Amino acid sequence: MNADIHLADEVLARLRDVPDFPRPGIVFKDITPMLADPILFGRVINAMSAPFRGQHITKVVGVEARGFILGAPVALALNAGFVPARKPGKLPHRTVIERYSLEYGADGLEMHQDAVLKGERVLIVDDVLATGGTAEATAKLATQLGGELVGFSFLMVLGFLDGAKRLGADRVRSLITL
Amino acid sequence: MNADIHLADEVLARLRDVPDFPRPGIVFKDITPMLADPILFGRVINAMSAPFRGQHITKVVGVEARGFILGAPVALALNAGFVPARKPGKLPHRTVIERYSLEYGADGLEMHQDAVLKGERVLIVDDVLATGGTAEATAKLATQLGGELVGFSFLMVLGFLDGAKRLGADRVRSLITL
Repeated sequence: MNADIHLADEVLARLRDVPDFPRPGIVFKDITPMLADPILFGRVINAMSAPFRGQHITKVVGVEARGFILGAPVALALNAGFVPARKPGKLPHRTVIERYSLEYGADGLEMHQDAVLKGERVLIVDDVLATGGTAEATAKLATQLGGELVGFSFLMVLGFLDGAKRLGADRVRSLITL
Repeated sequence: MNADIHLADEVLARLRDVPDFPRPGIVFKDITPMLADPILFGRVINAMSAPFRGQHITKVVGVEARGFILGAPVALALNAGFVPARKPGKLPHRTVIERYSLEYGADGLEMHQDAVLKGERVLIVDDVLATGGTAEATAKLATQLGGELVGFSFLMVLGFLDGAKRLGADRVRSLITL
């Protein structure tokens, strides 16, 4: 547990606050300084995978696009297949789609129809949990295909937005809470 | 070498041909069936990293978005930092930008100004090498920042388009040539 607390502090020190991105009034947490440090990046992947070791995860879903950077290594660490959840129109084969609302506007996510098989145990990975809209849509896609949702692994949770409550707090793991 | 030939055949068998995507007349090579197989995905990452082991790579650049899925695990395998090259407007901090022409139209790629330091040894990773426009733009971004370009690692090269010649054939490695 101590190791994780230290890791969280080290990662926090390597996140860059970018004010007014992508919109005025928002302070964006830029993860690229953490990704640039291979030792730290490796420890982050290990910490994001650890709570789900031994839980027989068969598919890790990464949410476009930063969720790909974290989700693909987590999938390999858990010996699970990797599934990209993408913005509409990007996946070439037959897909299922979920629309969701954002703080400002609406968006959608797609997954291939054969990406998750009936009974597969699914973990969803992304960098940030805010309102939970994106993660919830991803979970709906996976369960719609017959997958069993085991949990969510985030790098950071913005605690005050109650995203974890929306997803089911006991299924949500995060290295950092802001 | 035999192992690699077998791997190439196994991967080829797990690529899905999608006709008329993203445009009529194009047969898209869908890598998601390969990503869904954790053993195969792990072997692909190992094979894409192997030619650059011992070459003191310090930064692996992945090209948005499928290059993130392959590039992040390659970076971890080589103990190198990971750098995302993104579509314009997606990176939050100060960037450099390169415009490039596509078969149909034009596009651009951005990299953070501090993503590659002077003298760093850079490997560029993407799924497909076709005309080489995207990879060349990525290389220009890295060298513009003072990086030394060591090479390119692709999952597959579409041989007839002469992309490898454009990038310098001796720097290009690929698991599969189509």
